Amino acid sequence: MEPSKNAVVLLSGGMDSAVALALARRRGFEAHALTVDYGQRHRAEVSCARRIAAALGAARHIVVELDLRPFGGSALTADIDVPKDRALGRAAQEIPVTYVPARNTILLALALAWCETLGAEDIFIGVNRIDYSGYPDCRPPFIEQFERLAQTATKAGVEGRSRYRVHAPLLDMSKAEIVRAGLAAGVDFSLTHSCYDPTPENLACGRCDACILRRRGFQEAGIPDPTPYAP
Amino acid sequence: MEPSKNAVVLLSGGMDSAVALALARRRGFEAHALTVDYGQRHRAEVSCARRIAAALGAARHIVVELDLRPFGGSALTADIDVPKDRALGRAAQEIPVTYVPARNTILLALALAWCETLGAEDIFIGVNRIDYSGYPDCRPPFIEQFERLAQTATKAGVEGRSRYRVHAPLLDMSKAEIVRAGLAAGVDFSLTHSCYDPTPENLACGRCDACILRRRGFQEAGIPDPTPYAP
Repeated sequence: MEPSKNAVVLLSGGMDSAVALALARRRGFEAHALTVDYGQRHRAEVSCARRIAAALGAARHIVVELDLRPFGGSALTADIDVPKDRALGRAAQEIPVTYVPARNTILLALALAWCETLGAEDIFIGVNRIDYSGYPDCRPPFIEQFERLAQTATKAGVEGRSRYRVHAPLLDMSKAEIVRAGLAAGVDFSLTHSCYDPTPENLACGRCDACILRRRGFQEAGIPDPTPYAP
Repeated sequence: MEPSKNAVVLLSGGMDSAVALALARRRGFEAHALTVDYGQRHRAEVSCARRIAAALGAARHIVVELDLRPFGGSALTADIDVPKDRALGRAAQEIPVTYVPARNTILLALALAWCETLGAEDIFIGVNRIDYSGYPDCRPPFIEQFERLAQTATKAGVEGRSRYRVHAPLLDMSKAEIVRAGLAAGVDFSLTHSCYDPTPENLACGRCDACILRRRGFQEAGIPDPTPYAP
């Protein structure tokens, strides 16, 4: 039997990256989960990420501290209100204020660093373009450009020993499809956190974009959402 | 008169990035200096970066804390000895252990994040391929790929409002040329720190790759090196 290949899996603690981790495991990778604590409001994510990594059998889990708050510019890291009760649709073109500048570029760069020390060439990221069509760094041209960059940025890439691949298995799934794929791959969604703006008791607000998309996903999949929402 | 354009300048506290900052200022940019404290051995760099930013009139200086040590794999961040007294030449092909995995990818990603919140499209980085030909992320194909990535990764890039440029003004300079260019642009080299492995009293070791290249550069330029070296 071939030994398993190592992969680095970006794991936020939300539902999408948990499903990405489960799918990486299903495809036979030794998953090295990477979480970035970037000063986000919804830091409950980080402890969720720890539980998810353990539950899904990650070989290792690193939490990198990276404070992005000095840059400002996002409702997730700056003192800007998280929008509530927005009408969300697949046609949403505007980039929401919850976008964190260059976030996925930064996350993939960190994943690439770990790949280099691990000798891995596979990165999993739970981006999805259906619900977040407004985020530039959740689209295929971005993913493809990053693969090309990885090839020229690294020792193993330049020497032709590694062929870097960024796997985005959820790219074209609806939220309901993500729920179903996650259940099929053994994700315990009660360990995942989506809300951008939880209450002090860590109940999900139920009204931010992330809560709305999550609730709708479970609803459309016909599966109960285990999230405790604020009344 | 046209208002100055903002640029983000990566500033390590070493001599190359100080010269890059001075050249950005000479070209009329409002320089936003960005330093990453990534857990490097030679953290004296970071306080040097603060003094350099002030001396060269940076509009703002942000120090981002990003601990890369969990990834290991580099003599600058892991428990690996810094090599001493190596024969260095322009033909050096091997990537030294002082290479930090994906470091410039990470640094440029962070610079891009700040560009997005500033509305800037110019990044300055003090990479140089003459003395560090072994580092994959100090070569033109890497710089060009990153520019392409920036274009697809960002709101302003995708919408065609920004044309990102990564300026690497030292790319083809010898260390002696960097010394001369820095002096001409007003760099006080006594504020810069190069040594990878300073003594506890913060004297430069004089024997690591960075010290050897620095000394040789000043020597070839015929200019005294203001660095205090260990006896």
